Amino acid sequence: MTKEAKPLRADALRNRALVLEAAETVLARDGVAASMRAVAQQAGVGLGTIYRHFPTQEALYAAILDDRMRRLAERATTSYATSDAGPAFVEFFTDVVDNASRMKAMADTLGDAGVDVKAGLSEAGASIRSAIETLFVRAQQAGAVREDVGMPELLALLGAACMAAERNQWDPQLRDRTLNVIFDGLRPRP
Amino acid sequence: MTKEAKPLRADALRNRALVLEAAETVLARDGVAASMRAVAQQAGVGLGTIYRHFPTQEALYAAILDDRMRRLAERATTSYATSDAGPAFVEFFTDVVDNASRMKAMADTLGDAGVDVKAGLSEAGASIRSAIETLFVRAQQAGAVREDVGMPELLALLGAACMAAERNQWDPQLRDRTLNVIFDGLRPRP
Repeated sequence: MTKEAKPLRADALRNRALVLEAAETVLARDGVAASMRAVAQQAGVGLGTIYRHFPTQEALYAAILDDRMRRLAERATTSYATSDAGPAFVEFFTDVVDNASRMKAMADTLGDAGVDVKAGLSEAGASIRSAIETLFVRAQQAGAVREDVGMPELLALLGAACMAAERNQWDPQLRDRTLNVIFDGLRPRP
Repeated sequence: MTKEAKPLRADALRNRALVLEAAETVLARDGVAASMRAVAQQAGVGLGTIYRHFPTQEALYAAILDDRMRRLAERATTSYATSDAGPAFVEFFTDVVDNASRMKAMADTLGDAGVDVKAGLSEAGASIRSAIETLFVRAQQAGAVREDVGMPELLALLGAACMAAERNQWDPQLRDRTLNVIFDGLRPRP
Protein backbone atom coordinates (compact mmCIF):
# COMPACT_ATOMS: atom_id res chain seq x y z
CA MET A 1 0.00 0.00 0.00
CA THR A 2 1.70 3.28 -1.08
CA LYS A 3 1.41 6.27 1.21
CA GLU A 4 0.13 9.32 -0.63
CA ALA A 5 0.59 12.98 0.25
CA LYS A 6 -2.20 14.35 2.44
CA PRO A 7 -4.59 15.89 -0.09
CA LEU A 8 -6.22 19.28 0.06
CA ARG A 9 -9.76 19.30 1.40
CA ALA A 10 -11.29 19.85 -2.07
CA ASP A 11 -9.22 17.00 -3.46
CA ALA A 12 -10.19 14.76 -0.58
CA LEU A 13 -13.86 15.45 -1.19
CA ARG A 14 -13.47 14.84 -4.89
CA ASN A 15 -11.66 11.55 -4.22
CA ARG A 16 -14.29 10.44 -1.75
CA ALA A 17 -17.01 11.10 -4.34
CA LEU A 18 -14.97 9.24 -7.00
CA VAL A 19 -14.56 6.23 -4.72
CA LEU A 20 -18.26 6.14 -3.83
CA GLU A 21 -19.28 6.34 -7.47
CA ALA A 22 -16.81 3.60 -8.41
CA ALA A 23 -17.95 1.42 -5.49
CA GLU A 24 -21.58 1.74 -6.64
CA THR A 25 -20.59 0.65 -10.16
CA VAL A 26 -18.47 -2.26 -8.92
CA LEU A 27 -21.12 -3.39 -6.43
CA ALA A 28 -23.76 -3.40 -9.16
CA ARG A 29 -21.41 -5.39 -11.43
CA ASP A 30 -19.79 -7.85 -9.00
CA GLY A 31 -22.36 -8.02 -6.19
CA VAL A 32 -21.19 -9.11 -2.76
CA ALA A 33 -17.96 -10.50 -4.27
CA ALA A 34 -16.79 -6.93 -5.07
CA SER A 35 -13.25 -6.24 -3.79
CA MET A 36 -11.69 -3.01 -2.55
CA ARG A 37 -8.99 -3.50 -5.21
CA ALA A 38 -11.64 -3.51 -7.97
CA VAL A 39 -13.11 -0.31 -6.54
CA ALA A 40 -9.68 1.37 -6.51
CA GLN A 41 -9.09 0.32 -10.12
CA GLN A 42 -12.52 1.62 -11.18
CA ALA A 43 -11.99 4.93 -9.38
CA GLY A 44 -8.45 5.34 -10.69
CA VAL A 45 -7.05 5.94 -7.18
CA GLY A 46 -4.68 4.03 -4.93
CA LEU A 47 -5.91 1.51 -2.40
CA GLY A 48 -4.53 3.83 0.30
CA THR A 49 -6.90 6.60 -0.72
CA ILE A 50 -9.85 4.29 -0.29
CA TYR A 51 -8.75 3.06 3.14
CA ARG A 52 -8.12 6.62 4.31
CA HIS A 53 -11.80 7.46 3.70
CA PHE A 54 -13.30 4.07 4.48
CA PRO A 55 -11.42 1.90 6.98
CA THR A 56 -13.44 -1.23 6.09
CA GLN A 57 -15.36 -2.54 3.10
CA GLU A 58 -18.56 -2.38 5.21
CA ALA A 59 -17.94 1.31 5.93
CA LEU A 60 -17.49 1.95 2.20
CA TYR A 61 -20.66 0.14 1.20
CA ALA A 62 -22.75 1.69 3.96
CA ALA A 63 -21.49 5.10 2.80
CA ILE A 64 -22.79 4.54 -0.75
CA LEU A 65 -26.38 4.33 0.44
CA ASP A 66 -25.92 7.10 2.93
CA ASP A 67 -24.41 9.34 0.28
CA ARG A 68 -27.21 8.72 -2.20
CA MET A 69 -29.83 9.47 0.43
CA ARG A 70 -27.98 12.59 1.58
CA ARG A 71 -27.70 13.93 -1.98
CA LEU A 72 -31.41 13.31 -2.48
CA ALA A 73 -32.29 15.23 0.69
CA GLU A 74 -29.87 18.00 -0.38
CA ARG A 75 -31.61 18.41 -3.73
CA ALA A 76 -34.85 19.01 -1.79
CA THR A 77 -33.18 21.63 0.39
CA THR A 78 -31.73 23.39 -2.64
CA SER A 79 -35.13 23.51 -4.30
CA TYR A 80 -36.72 25.21 -1.26
CA ALA A 81 -34.98 28.40 -2.21
CA THR A 82 -34.84 28.25 -5.98
CA SER A 83 -38.10 26.87 -7.42
CA ASP A 84 -41.81 27.46 -7.47
CA ALA A 85 -43.47 25.53 -4.66
CA GLY A 86 -45.71 23.39 -6.90
CA PRO A 87 -43.09 22.14 -9.38
CA ALA A 88 -40.51 21.75 -6.59
CA PHE A 89 -42.83 19.36 -4.75
CA VAL A 90 -43.63 17.40 -7.92
CA GLU A 91 -39.96 17.12 -8.88
CA PHE A 92 -38.84 15.92 -5.49
CA PHE A 93 -41.65 13.35 -5.23
CA THR A 94 -40.56 12.00 -8.64
CA ASP A 95 -36.90 12.08 -7.61
CA VAL A 96 -37.65 9.97 -4.52
CA VAL A 97 -39.63 7.39 -6.53
CA ASP A 98 -36.82 7.28 -9.07
CA ASN A 99 -34.19 6.60 -6.45
CA ALA A 100 -36.27 4.08 -4.48
CA SER A 101 -35.58 1.24 -6.88
CA ARG A 102 -31.84 1.65 -7.03
CA MET A 103 -31.52 2.17 -3.30
CA LYS A 104 -33.64 -0.88 -2.54
CA ALA A 105 -31.53 -3.05 -4.85
CA MET A 106 -28.36 -1.80 -3.22
CA ALA A 107 -29.70 -2.22 0.32
CA ASP A 108 -30.60 -5.82 -0.56
CA THR A 109 -27.11 -6.51 -1.91
CA LEU A 110 -25.52 -4.99 1.18
CA GLY A 111 -27.92 -6.85 3.48
CA ASP A 112 -26.97 -10.12 1.74
CA ALA A 113 -23.31 -9.26 2.34
CA GLY A 114 -24.03 -8.91 6.05
CA VAL A 115 -23.73 -5.12 6.14
CA ASP A 116 -26.21 -3.65 8.62
CA VAL A 117 -27.94 -0.91 6.62
CA LYS A 118 -31.10 -0.52 8.70
CA ALA A 119 -29.93 2.24 11.04
CA GLY A 120 -28.51 4.30 8.17
CA LEU A 121 -31.62 3.78 6.06
CA SER A 122 -34.02 4.78 8.79
CA GLU A 123 -32.01 7.92 9.53
CA ALA A 124 -31.85 8.86 5.86
CA GLY A 125 -35.54 7.95 5.47
CA ALA A 126 -36.36 10.42 8.23
CA SER A 127 -34.49 13.23 6.48
CA ILE A 128 -36.26 12.51 3.19
CA ARG A 129 -39.61 12.40 4.98
CA SER A 130 -38.87 15.74 6.54
CA ALA A 131 -37.83 17.18 3.16
CA ILE A 132 -41.01 16.02 1.41
CA GLU A 133 -43.08 17.38 4.31
CA THR A 134 -41.50 20.82 3.96
CA LEU A 135 -42.04 20.87 0.18
CA PHE A 136 -45.62 19.63 0.58
CA VAL A 137 -46.64 22.25 3.14
CA ARG A 138 -44.97 24.93 1.01
CA ALA A 139 -46.95 23.77 -2.05
CA GLN A 140 -50.16 23.85 0.00
CA GLN A 141 -49.43 27.39 1.18
CA ALA A 142 -48.80 28.45 -2.42
CA GLY A 143 -52.20 26.97 -3.39
CA ALA A 144 -50.60 24.34 -5.66
CA VAL A 145 -51.73 21.38 -3.53
CA ARG A 146 -55.09 20.74 -1.81
CA GLU A 147 -55.34 21.87 1.79
CA ASP A 148 -57.48 18.87 2.79
CA VAL A 149 -54.79 16.25 2.12
CA GLY A 150 -52.63 15.40 5.14
CA MET A 151 -49.15 13.96 5.63
CA PRO A 152 -50.36 10.40 6.38
CA GLU A 153 -51.98 10.00 2.97
CA LEU A 154 -49.13 11.84 1.23
CA LEU A 155 -46.61 9.40 2.74
CA ALA A 156 -48.94 6.49 1.90
CA LEU A 157 -48.99 7.59 -1.75
CA LEU A 158 -45.22 8.13 -1.84
CA GLY A 159 -44.54 4.77 -0.19
CA ALA A 160 -46.95 3.00 -2.53
CA ALA A 161 -45.32 4.54 -5.61
CA CYS A 162 -41.81 3.70 -4.37
CA MET A 163 -42.71 0.06 -3.67
CA ALA A 164 -44.46 -0.46 -6.99
CA ALA A 165 -41.76 1.32 -9.01
CA GLU A 166 -39.18 -0.96 -7.40
CA ARG A 167 -41.10 -4.23 -7.55
CA ASN A 168 -42.54 -3.80 -11.03
CA GLN A 169 -39.61 -1.90 -12.58
CA TRP A 170 -41.61 1.08 -13.87
CA ASP A 171 -40.04 2.62 -16.95
CA PRO A 172 -39.87 6.45 -17.07
CA GLN A 173 -43.00 6.75 -19.22
CA LEU A 174 -45.13 4.55 -16.92
CA ARG A 175 -43.70 6.37 -13.92
CA ASP A 176 -44.68 9.77 -15.33
CA ARG A 177 -48.16 8.70 -16.42
CA THR A 178 -48.84 7.04 -13.06
CA LEU A 179 -47.48 9.87 -10.92
CA ASN A 180 -49.41 12.42 -13.00
CA VAL A 181 -52.69 10.84 -11.85
CA ILE A 182 -51.54 11.25 -8.24
CA PHE A 183 -50.37 14.83 -8.83
CA ASP A 184 -53.69 15.69 -10.48
CA GLY A 185 -55.47 14.20 -7.47
CA LEU A 186 -53.42 16.43 -5.20
CA ARG A 187 -54.23 19.63 -7.11
CA PRO A 188 -56.96 21.90 -5.76
CA ARG A 189 -60.30 21.48 -7.50
CA PRO A 190 -61.61 24.66 -9.10
CA MET B 1 -64.55 -41.50 9.92
CA THR B 2 -68.41 -41.74 9.77
CA LYS B 3 -70.00 -41.94 6.35
CA GLU B 4 -72.68 -39.29 5.87
CA ALA B 5 -75.71 -39.35 3.57
CA LYS B 6 -75.00 -37.79 0.18
CA PRO B 7 -76.22 -34.22 0.66
CA LEU B 8 -78.37 -32.20 -1.68
CA ARG B 9 -76.51 -29.84 -3.98
CA ALA B 10 -77.54 -26.74 -2.00
CA ASP B 11 -76.39 -28.40 1.24
CA ALA B 12 -73.13 -29.43 -0.36
CA LEU B 13 -72.44 -25.88 -1.47
CA ARG B 14 -73.34 -24.53 1.95
CA ASN B 15 -71.04 -27.06 3.61
CA ARG B 16 -68.22 -26.26 1.23
CA ALA B 17 -68.56 -22.56 2.08
CA LEU B 18 -68.70 -23.37 5.82
CA VAL B 19 -65.53 -25.44 5.58
CA LEU B 20 -63.67 -22.75 3.64
CA GLU B 21 -64.68 -20.07 6.14
CA ALA B 22 -63.66 -22.29 9.05
CA ALA B 23 -60.35 -23.17 7.37
CA GLU B 24 -59.56 -19.48 6.91
CA THR B 25 -60.23 -18.82 10.61
CA VAL B 26 -58.19 -21.83 11.74
CA LEU B 27 -55.32 -21.01 9.39
CA ALA B 28 -55.18 -17.43 10.69
CA ARG B 29 -55.22 -18.74 14.29
CA ASP B 30 -52.94 -21.82 14.10
CA GLY B 31 -50.81 -21.01 11.04
CA VAL B 32 -49.16 -23.89 9.23
CA ALA B 33 -49.80 -26.19 12.21
CA ALA B 34 -53.58 -26.09 11.52
CA SER B 35 -55.14 -29.57 11.34
CA MET B 36 -58.10 -30.84 9.32
CA ARG B 37 -59.67 -31.94 12.63
CA ALA B 38 -59.55 -28.35 13.95
CA VAL B 39 -61.17 -27.13 10.73
CA ALA B 40 -63.97 -29.72 11.07
CA GLN B 41 -64.57 -28.69 14.67
CA GLN B 42 -64.63 -24.99 13.75
CA ALA B 43 -67.05 -25.64 10.86
CA GLY B 44 -69.27 -27.95 12.92
CA VAL B 45 -69.14 -30.69 10.27
CA GLY B 46 -67.70 -34.20 10.21
CA LEU B 47 -64.20 -34.89 8.98
CA GLY B 48 -65.79 -36.92 6.15
CA THR B 49 -67.56 -33.85 4.82
CA ILE B 50 -64.26 -32.01 4.58
CA TYR B 51 -62.48 -34.86 2.80
CA ARG B 52 -65.36 -35.22 0.35
CA HIS B 53 -64.81 -31.63 -0.83
CA PHE B 54 -61.05 -31.44 -0.33
CA PRO B 55 -59.11 -34.69 -0.62
CA THR B 56 -55.96 -33.18 0.90
CA GLN B 57 -55.09 -30.36 3.28
CA GLU B 58 -53.21 -28.65 0.42
CA ALA B 59 -56.35 -28.75 -1.74
CA LEU B 60 -58.36 -27.20 1.08
CA TYR B 61 -55.90 -24.40 1.69
CA ALA B 62 -55.42 -23.64 -1.97
CA ALA B 63 -59.22 -23.44 -2.28
CA ILE B 64 -59.44 -20.73 0.40
CA LEU B 65 -57.41 -18.31 -1.67
CA ASP B 66 -59.11 -19.34 -4.86
CA ASP B 67 -62.53 -18.87 -3.30
CA ARG B 68 -61.75 -15.43 -1.96
CA MET B 69 -60.42 -14.32 -5.35
CA ARG B 70 -63.43 -15.81 -7.14
CA ARG B 71 -65.90 -14.04 -4.84
CA LEU B 72 -64.04 -10.78 -5.40
CA ALA B 73 -64.26 -11.17 -9.18
CA GLU B 74 -67.96 -12.14 -8.84
CA ARG B 75 -68.75 -8.96 -6.94
CA ALA B 76 -67.29 -7.04 -9.90
CA THR B 77 -69.46 -8.95 -12.37
CA THR B 78 -72.57 -8.34 -10.27
CA SER B 79 -71.87 -4.64 -10.17
CA TYR B 80 -71.65 -4.41 -13.99
CA ALA B 81 -75.40 -4.75 -14.15
CA THR B 82 -76.57 -3.06 -11.00
CA SER B 83 -74.57 0.10 -10.30
CA ASP B 84 -73.59 3.40 -11.83
CA ALA B 85 -70.32 3.02 -13.72
CA GLY B 86 -68.35 5.58 -11.65
CA PRO B 87 -69.20 4.30 -8.14
CA ALA B 88 -68.97 0.67 -9.33
CA PHE B 89 -65.36 1.26 -10.45
CA VAL B 90 -64.44 3.07 -7.21
CA GLU B 91 -66.04 0.37 -5.04
CA PHE B 92 -64.31 -2.48 -6.81
CA PHE B 93 -60.90 -0.76 -6.73
CA THR B 94 -61.35 -0.30 -2.95
CA ASP B 95 -62.55 -3.89 -2.58
CA VAL B 96 -59.39 -5.21 -4.28
CA VAL B 97 -57.09 -3.08 -2.09
CA ASP B 98 -59.02 -4.25 0.98
CA ASN B 99 -58.59 -7.89 0.09
CA ALA B 100 -54.94 -7.61 -0.96
CA SER B 101 -53.62 -7.58 2.58
CA ARG B 102 -55.52 -10.61 3.77
CA MET B 103 -54.79 -12.59 0.63
CA LYS B 104 -51.09 -11.77 0.78
CA ALA B 105 -50.87 -12.89 4.42
CA MET B 106 -52.67 -16.12 3.56
CA ALA B 107 -50.55 -16.78 0.47
CA ASP B 108 -47.42 -16.31 2.62
CA THR B 109 -48.69 -18.78 5.25
CA LEU B 110 -49.55 -21.31 2.56
CA GLY B 111 -46.22 -20.77 0.80
CA ASP B 112 -44.42 -21.39 4.12
CA ALA B 113 -46.40 -24.62 4.47
CA GLY B 114 -45.15 -25.75 1.07
CA VAL B 115 -48.46 -25.27 -0.74
CA ASP B 116 -47.88 -24.05 -4.29
CA VAL B 117 -50.20 -21.06 -4.60
CA LYS B 118 -48.56 -19.30 -7.54
CA ALA B 119 -50.59 -20.88 -10.35
CA GLY B 120 -53.89 -20.27 -8.54
CA LEU B 121 -52.93 -16.71 -7.69
CA SER B 122 -51.90 -15.81 -11.20
CA GLU B 123 -55.12 -17.23 -12.64
CA ALA B 124 -57.23 -15.39 -10.07
CA GLY B 125 -55.13 -12.27 -10.59
CA ALA B 126 -55.95 -12.41 -14.30
CA SER B 127 -59.69 -12.57 -13.63
CA ILE B 128 -59.48 -9.62 -11.24
CA ARG B 129 -57.42 -7.65 -13.77
CA SER B 130 -60.04 -8.36 -16.39
CA ALA B 131 -62.83 -7.28 -14.02
CA ILE B 132 -61.15 -3.98 -13.15
CA GLU B 133 -60.49 -3.36 -16.84
CA THR B 134 -64.18 -3.81 -17.69
CA LEU B 135 -65.28 -1.50 -14.87
CA PHE B 136 -62.64 1.08 -15.81
CA VAL B 137 -63.59 1.25 -19.49
CA ARG B 138 -67.26 1.42 -18.51
CA ALA B 139 -66.52 4.33 -16.16
CA GLN B 140 -64.59 6.08 -18.93
CA GLN B 141 -67.47 5.63 -21.36
CA ALA B 142 -69.87 7.07 -18.77
CA GLY B 143 -67.57 10.11 -18.44
CA ALA B 144 -66.77 9.31 -14.79
CA VAL B 145 -63.07 8.62 -15.45
CA ARG B 146 -60.57 10.51 -17.66
CA GLU B 147 -60.19 9.20 -21.19
CA ASP B 148 -56.45 9.92 -21.28
CA VAL B 149 -55.55 7.42 -18.55
CA GLY B 150 -54.66 3.93 -19.80
CA MET B 151 -54.68 0.43 -18.32
CA PRO B 152 -50.90 0.35 -17.60
CA GLU B 153 -51.07 3.29 -15.22
CA LEU B 154 -54.39 2.12 -13.75
CA LEU B 155 -52.82 -1.26 -12.91
CA ALA B 156 -49.69 0.52 -11.63
CA LEU B 157 -51.85 2.57 -9.25
CA LEU B 158 -53.86 -0.46 -8.14
CA GLY B 159 -50.73 -2.56 -7.59
CA ALA B 160 -49.05 0.25 -5.68
CA ALA B 161 -52.07 0.72 -3.40
CA CYS B 162 -52.34 -3.05 -2.78
CA MET B 163 -48.65 -3.39 -1.87
CA ALA B 164 -48.63 -0.38 0.44
CA ALA B 165 -51.93 -1.34 2.13
CA GLU B 166 -50.49 -4.77 2.83
CA ARG B 167 -46.98 -3.74 3.87
CA ASN B 168 -47.98 -0.74 5.99
CA GLN B 169 -51.29 -2.07 7.30
CA TRP B 170 -53.46 0.86 6.20
CA ASP B 171 -56.46 1.35 8.47
CA PRO B 172 -59.81 2.05 6.74
CA GLN B 173 -59.54 5.81 7.27
CA LEU B 174 -56.04 6.05 5.77
CA ARG B 175 -57.11 3.75 2.95
CA ASP B 176 -60.10 5.97 2.09
CA ARG B 177 -58.15 9.22 2.31
CA THR B 178 -55.32 7.84 0.18
CA LEU B 179 -57.53 6.23 -2.46
CA ASN B 180 -59.62 9.41 -2.68
CA VAL B 181 -56.57 11.30 -3.97
CA ILE B 182 -56.14 8.65 -6.67
CA PHE B 183 -59.86 8.69 -7.54
CA ASP B 184 -59.81 12.48 -7.76
CA GLY B 185 -56.81 12.25 -10.07
CA LEU B 186 -58.75 9.85 -12.29
CA ARG B 187 -61.78 12.14 -12.58
CA PRO B 188 -62.15 14.26 -15.69
CA ARG B 189 -61.03 17.85 -15.25
CA PRO B 190 -63.76 20.39 -15.94
